[in-house]
Amino acid sequence: MLPTILDLSSLRAAYQSGLTPLDAIEEVIARRAASKDPAIFITPVPDEELRAAAKALMARAPEVNSLPLWGVPFAVKDNIDAAGLPTTAACPAYAYRPEADSTVVARLKAAGALIIGKTNLDQFATGLNGTRSPYGAPRSVFDAAYISGGSSSGSAVTVASGLAAFALGTDTAGSGRVPAAFNNLVGIKPTPGLLPNTGAIPACKSVDCITIFAATVGDGVAIRKVAEGFDAADAFSRHAKPANLPVSGLRIGVLAGAEREFFGDKEVEALYDQAIERARALGATIVPFDYAPFREAAALLYDGPWVAERLAAVETFLATNAADFDPTVRGIIEGAKGKTAVEAFNGRYRLEELRRKTEAEWEKADVLLLPTAPTTYTVANMQANPVVLNGRLGRYTNFVNLLDCAAIAVPAGFGNDGLPGGVTVIAPAFTDDALAPLADALHRAAGSGMGIDRQAAIPEASRVAPGDDGFIEIAVVGAHLTGMPLNHELAGGRLVKTCRTSGDYRLFVLPNTTPPKPGLLREPGHKGQGLEVEVWALPADAFGRFVQKIPAPLGIGKLVLEDGSSVSGFVCEAHAVKGAEEITALGGWRNYIRAKLAS
Amino acid sequence: MLPTILDLSSLRAAYQSGLTPLDAIEEVIARRAASKDPAIFITPVPDEELRAAAKALMARAPEVNSLPLWGVPFAVKDNIDAAGLPTTAACPAYAYRPEADSTVVARLKAAGALIIGKTNLDQFATGLNGTRSPYGAPRSVFDAAYISGGSSSGSAVTVASGLAAFALGTDTAGSGRVPAAFNNLVGIKPTPGLLPNTGAIPACKSVDCITIFAATVGDGVAIRKVAEGFDAADAFSRHAKPANLPVSGLRIGVLAGAEREFFGDKEVEALYDQAIERARALGATIVPFDYAPFREAAALLYDGPWVAERLAAVETFLATNAADFDPTVRGIIEGAKGKTAVEAFNGRYRLEELRRKTEAEWEKADVLLLPTAPTTYTVANMQANPVVLNGRLGRYTNFVNLLDCAAIAVPAGFGNDGLPGGVTVIAPAFTDDALAPLADALHRAAGSGMGIDRQAAIPEASRVAPGDDGFIEIAVVGAHLTGMPLNHELAGGRLVKTCRTSGDYRLFVLPNTTPPKPGLLREPGHKGQGLEVEVWALPADAFGRFVQKIPAPLGIGKLVLEDGSSVSGFVCEAHAVKGAEEITALGGWRNYIRAKLAS
Repeated sequence: MLPTILDLSSLRAAYQSGLTPLDAIEEVIARRAASKDPAIFITPVPDEELRAAAKALMARAPEVNSLPLWGVPFAVKDNIDAAGLPTTAACPAYAYRPEADSTVVARLKAAGALIIGKTNLDQFATGLNGTRSPYGAPRSVFDAAYISGGSSSGSAVTVASGLAAFALGTDTAGSGRVPAAFNNLVGIKPTPGLLPNTGAIPACKSVDCITIFAATVGDGVAIRKVAEGFDAADAFSRHAKPANLPVSGLRIGVLAGAEREFFGDKEVEALYDQAIERARALGATIVPFDYAPFREAAALLYDGPWVAERLAAVETFLATNAADFDPTVRGIIEGAKGKTAVEAFNGRYRLEELRRKTEAEWEKADVLLLPTAPTTYTVANMQANPVVLNGRLGRYTNFVNLLDCAAIAVPAGFGNDGLPGGVTVIAPAFTDDALAPLADALHRAAGSGMGIDRQAAIPEASRVAPGDDGFIEIAVVGAHLTGMPLNHELAGGRLVKTCRTSGDYRLFVLPNTTPPKPGLLREPGHKGQGLEVEVWALPADAFGRFVQKIPAPLGIGKLVLEDGSSVSGFVCEAHAVKGAEEITALGGWRNYIRAKLAS
Repeated sequence: MLPTILDLSSLRAAYQSGLTPLDAIEEVIARRAASKDPAIFITPVPDEELRAAAKALMARAPEVNSLPLWGVPFAVKDNIDAAGLPTTAACPAYAYRPEADSTVVARLKAAGALIIGKTNLDQFATGLNGTRSPYGAPRSVFDAAYISGGSSSGSAVTVASGLAAFALGTDTAGSGRVPAAFNNLVGIKPTPGLLPNTGAIPACKSVDCITIFAATVGDGVAIRKVAEGFDAADAFSRHAKPANLPVSGLRIGVLAGAEREFFGDKEVEALYDQAIERARALGATIVPFDYAPFREAAALLYDGPWVAERLAAVETFLATNAADFDPTVRGIIEGAKGKTAVEAFNGRYRLEELRRKTEAEWEKADVLLLPTAPTTYTVANMQANPVVLNGRLGRYTNFVNLLDCAAIAVPAGFGNDGLPGGVTVIAPAFTDDALAPLADALHRAAGSGMGIDRQAAIPEASRVAPGDDGFIEIAVVGAHLTGMPLNHELAGGRLVKTCRTSGDYRLFVLPNTTPPKPGLLREPGHKGQGLEVEVWALPADAFGRFVQKIPAPLGIGKLVLEDGSSVSGFVCEAHAVKGAEEITALGGWRNYIRAKLAS
């Protein structure tokens, strides 16, 4: 009754058809027992507790789908607290048993989601490959010789193998995106601060993000909306200030020239080029941009002072338990020991300089489309060269949090080697919602299924509707038309189209107006040709100030256009046209002005 | 012909009356020669160069007052570059001769201002007292035994003694505010990043601000508008996003209980209390708030890692020239040598925690009104105990830049000891303009003149008009009235007043509307009683979205109210009221609904 991949739409439909959360949990238990990867979980929730949680939900909220995540099984990376389950950060000696849920886990549970376990990770979330854990290395669901990606390794594999509908990761350098790419999943990497980190173990506290692995972009966004929101207990939590992206004419920046680096992986390179073509086919304008300043910012995360944040997070524990660390992780964190406060500030200065340089690139492109990871490796190769190969994985992800961006990683198809590739769309802070329609469209166009099910159709119910760019359309009819004296009042807006009103409008020359202005009146039943209007789009605040400036007897109401649609536009108080010259027959104000100038 | 204090209004008026910039410069030269304080300037511009600059301005812009700062003499703190003059930072061995102006000096010169010299400062801007310089200690213009305040010591004294109309300072801990308080001046401390720091020597690069000492708030704001604006060459420069403060009902937070600390200075304490009473008399609501989290943030600036920024700024020079430092300054900067990158990040974390705590206080108050400095000291006392006494001076200033605030320091009268006190108004980032009317009103109400001239009347021409809070007023007439079904669409706005339209409006019941709505039509000549309206105020973007939601046949035009004023409000297309029930006689929609419910 349940498909391989437990996306939200399929799960809700199954519930609607009579499946119960307890049934779903029984299926999860069976799948978990049958799983061939022993390294996914650090602490699975025991079967009986899972059943009890499902029953408790059904008692608390008996109506089907009556909560946003009613009966949705999910997994939690083991550096995020879930009450009653140990938090290990993949370091057994570090483990503690939190009494309270982290803020995001509490919100997800309150929305009806059922936690199935705590998942494996690169120790202290330090790594992008998934092999740095005493609990073993989870594997790519497509080839057990290959890494799953990390650090949120177990979380990605639970979703990709159909053990959970979604899973929480964390992401400092790319840990919520690289494993998505390696397991044919969506990785939602919110703007830093959008999801509170209360109850999560810091890696680099100033840039850490909790993330969501999901089967579809629509699922991931829906889950993010449950988990997000300001939390005063997290000093880095922020109030969201949603930012828009253009709804049409989107400019997508792609790698060019020497910045195209795939470390010899022709398969991933080809998948990236195909994703670019899909973006073009979706109507975007593809533009090259200079990746260099982003790459240099990315390098700061490990080569600069930020690694001292990792040391700050575990300094006390490291002092007494150095032998309990994964040797690679310990080496990285101890590398911060000699760093000075002066170096920390110099790093900050360098980042701000690079941020300035990236701003010039953001003038060229609205969104960046990058490979999520440039290549992948076998577990054996990764373990043989753990620092250098891991570093390569973060080439296109490390800068994103340092530069305060939102990102969504989506599947980009499979190479001839049978391994998936991924691409990530990236834009400045708080474009989380605005990015989603593009990410969803790219995922659907890739036709590569969800997780381990390469043939799965992405449910229509999870489609992300094209975004509202926050602009308000207004039809102008007189002195605001292009070339007319008040057109400058529309500065900051854009001309959407020139068209006509429906036929039942009449146009008059308003007496005693400077500059001259017409009055447009609707008269139902009047059979005319319609009047010329220009439809402009303005940001909401500019529209508001525009309306405020309009003098009587004019105002802004709704106009009906020739195609029957309705749009904000100029209306006129009727008393003002009494005895005024009617110019309806001229078809519009522009013709009247022309005729006047000619006479 | 020129008054003691060279405020912009007096200077412009003198120019209008026939004085030339060359005449003004001759006066400045004479005053400079007569000055009894030998420590004001490090590098005065030579007399002949000053005359040449005045002549060059008259050749370049011959028309009187034809540039924003036409012929306005100003001084520049000697850690800000001015082309051709050495920059010393009050450390002779460090001096260099810049070829280019700093960005702000270039903008001021382009606007017609005439630089008269580079002024003394606490070395490397490290200090709040003005005694840490090998060029001597400038003195309070009111008592030469007393410190001028620092680090922008010479800049404040030039303005307060009538040698310049304004002067540039820099401010990390309070260096642009404390000297204003000690010299009866206005100190404009812009939001960090508003004035670019390109061409200024950093103290703490991440929080430094260039500031303006002026005779009046109006002058300071006018000068700030010339100097401000994004500069891509400064990685900490920001695009302004002006923030509003309430125009009425302003809540002003003041010190309470144990946080009232004046180190025994009853004079300054009394001046602070008088300033609070003046604010109350101006119509503000005075509220106590908890200063503790601000004080703890203030302490971080010297006790936390930020002092490492001072070291980062001069590290190379210090390595070779330690003996060339002022011993106190050197001691402070060398104190950063042992600090680690982990400490730097831990300091950042602490600041973010404190920022969160201060946010709760900003819920109580729109603006903070604090003593600029809690007390002052003689030069002798300061030199005897330079670190402890200096630390006290920054008690109410050190937090402001760390917490990303705008501030304006204004005179607050004189104590019985003949020394001036000052108060500072502080609000979150980008309230620079919004703070100005309050600051100006407080200065005028203090009645303590400008600079050394305690009797000077503050020119009316420099008055700062009450601010626009960015809200747009809208008159609602029907379903949006308080208690009516669509009133919720005004959420986020505030009710300004209930009143009536002028008598020439008629009100109709629109047929087939849900919820029921009226249509308001103006009919010039109609003699009625007017209709009840509520005037609400909405932010511009909310107003824009509100207008967009209004369905035909309604729209937003302009209504004339009973007092003859005009305001945005509901209008109706005339065709929609044909045959509709007229309810003008009921006086408004509320009476119609009441009558209907009763029937």
